Amino acid sequence: MSAYHPLNEQEAIEIARALDSFFPEDAQLSSREIGDGNLNLVFHITDTVSGKSLIMKQAVPYAKVVGESWPLSLERARIESDALILQHKLAPGLVPQVYSYDADLALTIMEDLSDHIIMRQGLINGVRYPKFAEDISTFMAQTLFFTSDLGMNQQDKKLQVKSFVNPDLCKITEDLIFDDPYAVSSNNNYEPAIEDAAEALRTNGALHLEVAILREKFLTNAQALLHGDLHTGSVFATPESTKVIDPEFAYYGPIGFDIGAVIANLLLNYAGQGHWIKDEAERESFRAYLLDTIREVWAKFDAKFRALWNEHNVDRLAKSAAGYQDYYMNRLLQDAIGFAGCKIVRRIVGLSHVADIDRIPDAADREQAQRLALTIGTSLILLNRSAVSIEQAIDAVVTATAHERS
Amino acid sequence: MSAYHPLNEQEAIEIARALDSFFPEDAQLSSREIGDGNLNLVFHITDTVSGKSLIMKQAVPYAKVVGESWPLSLERARIESDALILQHKLAPGLVPQVYSYDADLALTIMEDLSDHIIMRQGLINGVRYPKFAEDISTFMAQTLFFTSDLGMNQQDKKLQVKSFVNPDLCKITEDLIFDDPYAVSSNNNYEPAIEDAAEALRTNGALHLEVAILREKFLTNAQALLHGDLHTGSVFATPESTKVIDPEFAYYGPIGFDIGAVIANLLLNYAGQGHWIKDEAERESFRAYLLDTIREVWAKFDAKFRALWNEHNVDRLAKSAAGYQDYYMNRLLQDAIGFAGCKIVRRIVGLSHVADIDRIPDAADREQAQRLALTIGTSLILLNRSAVSIEQAIDAVVTATAHERS
Repeated sequence: MSAYHPLNEQEAIEIARALDSFFPEDAQLSSREIGDGNLNLVFHITDTVSGKSLIMKQAVPYAKVVGESWPLSLERARIESDALILQHKLAPGLVPQVYSYDADLALTIMEDLSDHIIMRQGLINGVRYPKFAEDISTFMAQTLFFTSDLGMNQQDKKLQVKSFVNPDLCKITEDLIFDDPYAVSSNNNYEPAIEDAAEALRTNGALHLEVAILREKFLTNAQALLHGDLHTGSVFATPESTKVIDPEFAYYGPIGFDIGAVIANLLLNYAGQGHWIKDEAERESFRAYLLDTIREVWAKFDAKFRALWNEHNVDRLAKSAAGYQDYYMNRLLQDAIGFAGCKIVRRIVGLSHVADIDRIPDAADREQAQRLALTIGTSLILLNRSAVSIEQAIDAVVTATAHERS
Repeated sequence: MSAYHPLNEQEAIEIARALDSFFPEDAQLSSREIGDGNLNLVFHITDTVSGKSLIMKQAVPYAKVVGESWPLSLERARIESDALILQHKLAPGLVPQVYSYDADLALTIMEDLSDHIIMRQGLINGVRYPKFAEDISTFMAQTLFFTSDLGMNQQDKKLQVKSFVNPDLCKITEDLIFDDPYAVSSNNNYEPAIEDAAEALRTNGALHLEVAILREKFLTNAQALLHGDLHTGSVFATPESTKVIDPEFAYYGPIGFDIGAVIANLLLNYAGQGHWIKDEAERESFRAYLLDTIREVWAKFDAKFRALWNEHNVDRLAKSAAGYQDYYMNRLLQDAIGFAGCKIVRRIVGLSHVADIDRIPDAADREQAQRLALTIGTSLILLNRSAVSIEQAIDAVVTATAHERS
């Protein structure tokens, strides 16, 4: 029998107090449940005397977003904890530190980052993050290279693939990103105003071919250990610091999926800024900042991944094969662009949306943002097999935006 | 503590006798160890009274081919047994039936097929196998489709990927097929007469790029549960019957790898037939039979896989995406051609050779066969990303053969 049960705040405090030498003897602990309510309970435990604090994250055995009817394995808590520990080793300072993990309770106790804010909210507020491109490119290059066949023992990698098999969480992605938006599905969720655009997604055969190819990569291409859900809601940021959280979707998949998630969520904010920033010059400037950030994320990732390859590559043939690195990096770029498109589309017509667009109060503004996002998303998907430069993705965004205004 | 130890013939007989109701009470059992000596002990147990017989295959914890210095996990015996049972279900009549499996002893007891002969030997003798293309295409279409994301529950498939993670055996393939032949390696094994051709393999940058791409697919592309070693030495055949044996290399990999193995070994025999059949008309005729068999294997596999797709596809997007099936099948063809090339090359310069060529007694004949095989192999590798028809592979063979004679 498992000892698992969802914790209440008092139990969370007791577990925190028992944690070896974290809080002082005289700690006055208080707890607040701060989970966003989808898949986990999150307790913020604070000692009002010393000011020390930590986070306790407990998986629940179902997805709350659709009630208790969508069961989810608690195994994902183990996967998240293992992924955090590995990412902390490979990209120190860019993920919260794990203090302990309790398998029975599916509970991870970790560093409190509440001096940071969720980057999605920051971007909505018009905050710029000058360190973000540098940090996220380091996070991705380090965690993806050193878990791939290029950067680690290839037999150990196979055991790591095994350890991160994650069917329940992958199914969420497979359904919500790579299936529902292109079909009539009860999981879909969009406003009647964009019914024509949603219908166009369901009937575009050329688009379905590209999505099928990207879906197949997600299903079969065990390139590296992905974060698996690397949107701006999984990033805690300040202008000086970046922390990547919540890798419960971690599994071995195509590297471009993580890069695409970052690009997609910068572009979702871009689409929403048609509303949030009323002054045209300011809006232009912030949008230019977002596009520059995308350029920088790719350029820095590309440079760092190549540098790791040149210094730490373990695959003899990958060294001697002329042009292989260029070929490999271009496919990562193409995958990133295609996956970015898929991730944008699903945030408009699929089950789960983003605040950058959904919280726009004015219906006409919201619709304009949704249509712009869909135009950008489908353009990127259609670009995925031919792209040779990140500028082509940027051009697609600029073209879609010009069209928005006309 | 494990009860594992390598069995002797007396112990093998005792285990066979204890097998539930297989042999009659009054059986007079005799045993003969018939393993080819690489990775396993194989006992052929016969009851001289009833004539009933069975095979007992026990994994040993090292590769004998290089002494005891190359340790191999006994886990491969479990993988082989599980793969045989699954293949028997998916392609009934085309693999030996498993009677029992003993995990402690890494021992599989199975159907005796000694009324069949190893197809490689049959082909060397000039025997034609009119059912082979039909049977092997059924075996591949059934086992590969129904273990892929197209033909089985996609979450169950992930658990199956996990269960068939096979690092030790994959490493053999990765080293011997996708690395050593293109580098100076103590694993390589070829005659001084073809040093120039071996050197050309090591210095051909364009070839290395293609091999690197194919190697990456072998490392990362978890498309379906492969046999993993589907050469003509893994096929027991009569003109009326085909049985596929020895799936200890089974793992989730690219579908084209199995198809390529079949093509490669038909072509290795083709190259050797310059010696084995002295009469030119007869040789021409047998070689034409081999090329027709390759055409047929691909055409029948292609037709059967598409038929399964059209009837049993579980992936909604794979249905609605216009042109996806054609795109998918063309990549399988390209992969099959590329992997075939890699598998030919390694049998000439790598560690492990084939009797079709190695047993040619005349040095000049042998060298001619080796050079022909290398020309065919490198042509196929270089063709891998552009092929759109199996005829292009056949043309490459015909061109190489014309060159042989000039």
